[in-house]
Amino acid sequence: MKKIINDPATVAIQALQGVGLAHADLVRVNLEPPYLVRADGPVQGKVAIVSGGGSGHEPLAGGYVGVGMLDAAVPGAVFTSPTPDQILEATQAADGGAGVVHLVLNYTGDILNFETAAELAEAEGIEVTPVIIDDDVAVKDSTYTAGRRGVGGAIPWYKITGAAAARGDDLKSVVEISQRVVANVRTMGMALTPCTVPHSGEPSFTLADDEMEIGIGVHGEPGRERVKLASADEIVATLLGSVVDDLPFERGARTLLFVNGMGGTPLIELYLAYNSARTFLAERGVEVVRSLVGNYFTSLEMQGISISLLNLDDELIELWDAPVHTPAMRRGR
Amino acid sequence: MKKIINDPATVAIQALQGVGLAHADLVRVNLEPPYLVRADGPVQGKVAIVSGGGSGHEPLAGGYVGVGMLDAAVPGAVFTSPTPDQILEATQAADGGAGVVHLVLNYTGDILNFETAAELAEAEGIEVTPVIIDDDVAVKDSTYTAGRRGVGGAIPWYKITGAAAARGDDLKSVVEISQRVVANVRTMGMALTPCTVPHSGEPSFTLADDEMEIGIGVHGEPGRERVKLASADEIVATLLGSVVDDLPFERGARTLLFVNGMGGTPLIELYLAYNSARTFLAERGVEVVRSLVGNYFTSLEMQGISISLLNLDDELIELWDAPVHTPAMRRGR
Repeated sequence: MKKIINDPATVAIQALQGVGLAHADLVRVNLEPPYLVRADGPVQGKVAIVSGGGSGHEPLAGGYVGVGMLDAAVPGAVFTSPTPDQILEATQAADGGAGVVHLVLNYTGDILNFETAAELAEAEGIEVTPVIIDDDVAVKDSTYTAGRRGVGGAIPWYKITGAAAARGDDLKSVVEISQRVVANVRTMGMALTPCTVPHSGEPSFTLADDEMEIGIGVHGEPGRERVKLASADEIVATLLGSVVDDLPFERGARTLLFVNGMGGTPLIELYLAYNSARTFLAERGVEVVRSLVGNYFTSLEMQGISISLLNLDDELIELWDAPVHTPAMRRGR
Repeated sequence: MKKIINDPATVAIQALQGVGLAHADLVRVNLEPPYLVRADGPVQGKVAIVSGGGSGHEPLAGGYVGVGMLDAAVPGAVFTSPTPDQILEATQAADGGAGVVHLVLNYTGDILNFETAAELAEAEGIEVTPVIIDDDVAVKDSTYTAGRRGVGGAIPWYKITGAAAARGDDLKSVVEISQRVVANVRTMGMALTPCTVPHSGEPSFTLADDEMEIGIGVHGEPGRERVKLASADEIVATLLGSVVDDLPFERGARTLLFVNGMGGTPLIELYLAYNSARTFLAERGVEVVRSLVGNYFTSLEMQGISISLLNLDDELIELWDAPVHTPAMRRGR
């Protein structure tokens, strides 16, 4: 295992400390239990947005804490759900008295632990509404999931939900917007290489030198099929074909196109894949009006990409364009 | 070779097309010859800042074109200097009548080709002043260099030089600021894994499973020594020890600390290394007042990091903090 770490047991916490030191102007880090909150929070009278999940997906979710996105994020150990008490404390720290939305990616452990935390928070008088994302079209059920997995669509979902809360929407309205994103976003991913969880020390799976995994999960869990390595154009056609057909995205649709790297993929390949995706979508008559390209939802050092497509309306565009000021996403301010 | 590409011959150009499509609001891409300019440029009466070098280092340099940073960038083939005619055309496209600064990283091919382009531009009445960065403390001469290499320090150098031009400094003042950054920034890097140039198809070097290369160059060229894999704290102490001793950075110095990923390094490791670096610098009495953490100057999919330290004064801090609006760096606007 080749990693720049000190000890597998302290990877998540030392990285979290680094985030807190590097971005002290934006976030405040709590170590026991681990969570991040907005440096200027809680914001009284604003609906608070809280998310989280296992570490190893950086900048998800702590990198999205700040103005216009998340109020708090709760990192578990690598690829392990955060505990209910962690989520509860983060929820309390984020609460500004106008209710809290839990943005939960559809993995069994996360669903259960956020649910328990919500019950505990409700018992203390904090109104909590969960919204669940399950945007991965690759597989129906999976190693860690009943139903579809929550994957790359989480990034525009965080952004748009956070912007709705930032403009002063009440809890019900924020939840409606958040659910609208879930209903309109679809994603599929692939990998060239596995990732290695620090405390395991072994790759999560093996792929031959001429193989790739289509429909990969963000923990390296199996996807749809293992096939021979193909060209970027072919890879993109496979991923986007499934994505476009699933919703489906119609001719004339105005979309956000998001090409995400899995952590070990260099930016030159992400932009190349984005270029292929634009050609593919132009042929299908799907319009791209907003874009995101980068390593935003990773699986440690795995090489691969996911492609997300979000069907936009005027309101979603306005919320996507709204100011955001977080460690991993900054715009318009 | 596992890469998401179509053809080794078209990697750089298809990625460039992707950048142009994804960021049409910020940059305009020219394909023959390849260069990027600000979408709203040239800015009349402003000193123009132009840089470039081989592709494979994304987001360097095209990702830094935009308001408050570079006016144009010239990408060569992967790890290959851009040609003089490319640089000349980019210089002409960026020129706003107040002179042009060529920001050149110290590699022999880049130095020669930027020099030739500057002569051609001067012959056409454009005043060009080159500034050269050579911030790598690892080795004196190297495979591609007479003298030290230009590495991670280029990122704050681009930012601060661009901000000086954006506030309206004249050519002489912009050059003075730019040279001040060069005089005050030092960097050293290391790698866990090699990278593979697409048209070669083979890794640039080999490392055993328990080895790393200290002082690596950004093309995978040899550094100081090949040693056994060590902890993050030890790696950081080796890199930063050399950096701090070189300038030297004194007790009480106010610095920008930049932990850069080589392309295949996940963000969790970069923040962990950043945390180690803060501990190291605190022990040396060096203050960190500004920070940057991410994959900003890469070597394709190489896993590794570089650490840069920039000695700041009030003016450099003000210029670092100034608004910037580019594909790869956005703040304060």
